[in-house]
Amino acid sequence: MSERRKVVIIGGGFGGLSAAQHLNSNLVDVTLIDRRNYHLFQPLLYQVATGSLSPGEIASPLRSVLSRQKNTRVWLGTIVDVDPDAKRVILADGTIVPYDSLIVAAGSETSHFGHNDWQQWAPGLKSIEEATTIRHKILYAFEVAERLSDPKERRAWLTFVIVGAGATGVELSGAIAEIARQTLKNDFRSINPEEAQIILMDGAPRALMSFSEDLSEKATRSLAKLGVQVRCGAMVKHINEQGLAIESEKGADSIAAKTVVWAGGITASPLGKILARRTNAETDKGARVKVKPDLTVPNYPDIYVIGDLASATDEKGRPLPGLAQVAMQGGAYAANAILRKVKGQQELPPFRYFDKGSLAVIGRAAAVADVFGTHLSGLIAWLVWVFIHLMYLVNFQSRVLVFTQWAIQDLTFSRGARLITGAAPTDFDFTQDLSGMRSEREIKPETVNVAR
Amino acid sequence: MSERRKVVIIGGGFGGLSAAQHLNSNLVDVTLIDRRNYHLFQPLLYQVATGSLSPGEIASPLRSVLSRQKNTRVWLGTIVDVDPDAKRVILADGTIVPYDSLIVAAGSETSHFGHNDWQQWAPGLKSIEEATTIRHKILYAFEVAERLSDPKERRAWLTFVIVGAGATGVELSGAIAEIARQTLKNDFRSINPEEAQIILMDGAPRALMSFSEDLSEKATRSLAKLGVQVRCGAMVKHINEQGLAIESEKGADSIAAKTVVWAGGITASPLGKILARRTNAETDKGARVKVKPDLTVPNYPDIYVIGDLASATDEKGRPLPGLAQVAMQGGAYAANAILRKVKGQQELPPFRYFDKGSLAVIGRAAAVADVFGTHLSGLIAWLVWVFIHLMYLVNFQSRVLVFTQWAIQDLTFSRGARLITGAAPTDFDFTQDLSGMRSEREIKPETVNVAR
Repeated sequence: MSERRKVVIIGGGFGGLSAAQHLNSNLVDVTLIDRRNYHLFQPLLYQVATGSLSPGEIASPLRSVLSRQKNTRVWLGTIVDVDPDAKRVILADGTIVPYDSLIVAAGSETSHFGHNDWQQWAPGLKSIEEATTIRHKILYAFEVAERLSDPKERRAWLTFVIVGAGATGVELSGAIAEIARQTLKNDFRSINPEEAQIILMDGAPRALMSFSEDLSEKATRSLAKLGVQVRCGAMVKHINEQGLAIESEKGADSIAAKTVVWAGGITASPLGKILARRTNAETDKGARVKVKPDLTVPNYPDIYVIGDLASATDEKGRPLPGLAQVAMQGGAYAANAILRKVKGQQELPPFRYFDKGSLAVIGRAAAVADVFGTHLSGLIAWLVWVFIHLMYLVNFQSRVLVFTQWAIQDLTFSRGARLITGAAPTDFDFTQDLSGMRSEREIKPETVNVAR
Repeated sequence: MSERRKVVIIGGGFGGLSAAQHLNSNLVDVTLIDRRNYHLFQPLLYQVATGSLSPGEIASPLRSVLSRQKNTRVWLGTIVDVDPDAKRVILADGTIVPYDSLIVAAGSETSHFGHNDWQQWAPGLKSIEEATTIRHKILYAFEVAERLSDPKERRAWLTFVIVGAGATGVELSGAIAEIARQTLKNDFRSINPEEAQIILMDGAPRALMSFSEDLSEKATRSLAKLGVQVRCGAMVKHINEQGLAIESEKGADSIAAKTVVWAGGITASPLGKILARRTNAETDKGARVKVKPDLTVPNYPDIYVIGDLASATDEKGRPLPGLAQVAMQGGAYAANAILRKVKGQQELPPFRYFDKGSLAVIGRAAAVADVFGTHLSGLIAWLVWVFIHLMYLVNFQSRVLVFTQWAIQDLTFSRGARLITGAAPTDFDFTQDLSGMRSEREIKPETVNVAR
């Protein structure tokens, strides 16, 4: 490596990748480090979880995205520590990487509000592995129900609860309703997939709290039309293999459900706490690192924190939301600030987030959108959603493939990626004995020869 | 269920699915049982292993393939026993399913010739899970090599050995060579992916033994052009994390290789042995069940065994090969035989396999083909290969998506599905300490704070 300024970027999500792309200059040497070899387009992860898209269609290898950018190298590795005074980061295998400027964009992960044991019953939706686990659980539930005769048991297997009525929860519940009502309609002989109950719940008074009330109401009506029950003002008290215990104004209640998905909360990457400890920075209640208006850590003008890991505010002092838009704009800002420093130019004014709007899709051909303050709903909002998502997919191949999948699915109602792969979910195993299975006669144990 | 003849089909591969589709008649009730919820197009599995295609593109949910066939139900389940006298099959959970006619199409699995411990170092290529494991290993190897400085270690990580030079081995080694020479060409900074060594080995005297000598020679030349070393007449003595010990005419040798793929052998599903024990049938050395000329088990005219699980011969007494063609034709034959029985029609003449030819593809735009006895090679053989594979993919959506992927890849040399997902491979873990890693300075152990 030359004597050019060394920029290290931690994380290849929306923030880190945007920073890397804005550092495409021969004035700097860039090293992007991520635990994964790909950039993940998280807004479409719910479509992987519901079998519309394959993981490969929403993930792009970081190496190939950045292969033409000759000043940039990509390393697969896990950061375990930062030494801000010696200006270096430390990888899990002991490798140390020195930097002149550091951009920390390690993002966030699912948080069950301190109940880590809920993850096994109610996985979050932040990674490809979680998305395929959820797909597995949803499709398996229908398979089990097809073979059960007890109506109560069947009902528990055909009840799907989504905790958290933000954009992810709304999109996921709409997609599950479509699977039950349309995709699987003719596929079963013993059950009617329309028996499925889909419940979207949240402790907040209404769905899509980050949207205006009129759009939130329209979304709730669209969900009801698809067959989703929206239960707001209900808090989760407990989750286990049987279902959930909840509490609302009406008192305590329980829901028997074999499939629960957690879209309820996130917390910053643990790297935030490590960085805060090393730099004496503060963190907020979401474990995000409080940054200065220029996105640097107090007293460390060469360390930028961007995206979900940063606790930043807008000009009115309101916290910035954890959105791809915020991360991308933060990455571009940090990159420009560094290039200006190298060129000896004047410092940038404080970071300003430019809110282009919010979108949430509800099933096929319906969405709500707040675009530059204009409220849209229905088909037009959905078209805006399709256009924006296709444009933001980082590479050409993904755009073509996702468009092709959507076109086929809108024409045929089928879903191409309805595979149950990997190990069986922990809560049901077809190789185990199951009382109440739909069998023609009971079999005597001694005639069963479990050979494999 | 009515009093119509009950047909149970075990396995939803080429044989079982073909049988089910030929039983589309209201004279019979069909139950297709598989451990998986999808039909897998195995001939393209090597493209999943090498990141060209996503699993969802070559797998179709059995339920949706058969959803319009109202006389057929699909069950997810594992068969553990067959009771041929009481005419019923037993599932792992104790469910019993009675039949009037049984079609056993349980297929085959990878065999390491008794060395089951080799699977961890040299996975086979028979399932989606194995394909993504192999993809993981191949892509990881380049990532590790990028960070190693010791030339000997790098060489071991950049050596890829494929054991078994049948069609799968030839196709896989050609695809790995293309990844190294073309796809990854510009993606690394420290290594040159062209340093990669790809070795295709087999105990047989030449590659593609099932093809004629001229086509085998052409394939070997095409592979050499792509940079694949073909080593025939070499037997594997041992495989471990370091690589392979081999033996050939020239004596004993060893190859240091971190990535070994087993395309060397298959054995029939264990269900074959269970069935043989229950029916007193014989099995051949591949654990396949010896069947009569009408594909039934001796003394059990209602049990058909087809595909990879059946040991059948052609009119000259030669064993039929384990090909999709043979399984599909066997499935159609068994289905027709059963329908004739129901209708009281005359029995079918013995099963005759009609050999339409063999194909093997070698990288982009090259293949060898034996079509109805005509020997083709190069571009024309490749076009035949593309056409046939697209036509045989069972559903419209897969055809469109696979075609789109291939078109993009042939235009751009990129691969859309280059994701490393799931747990790290057992033989390398980026969270472990690795001596010889390319680090700028050595770090003192006490400064490393392994936080996660």
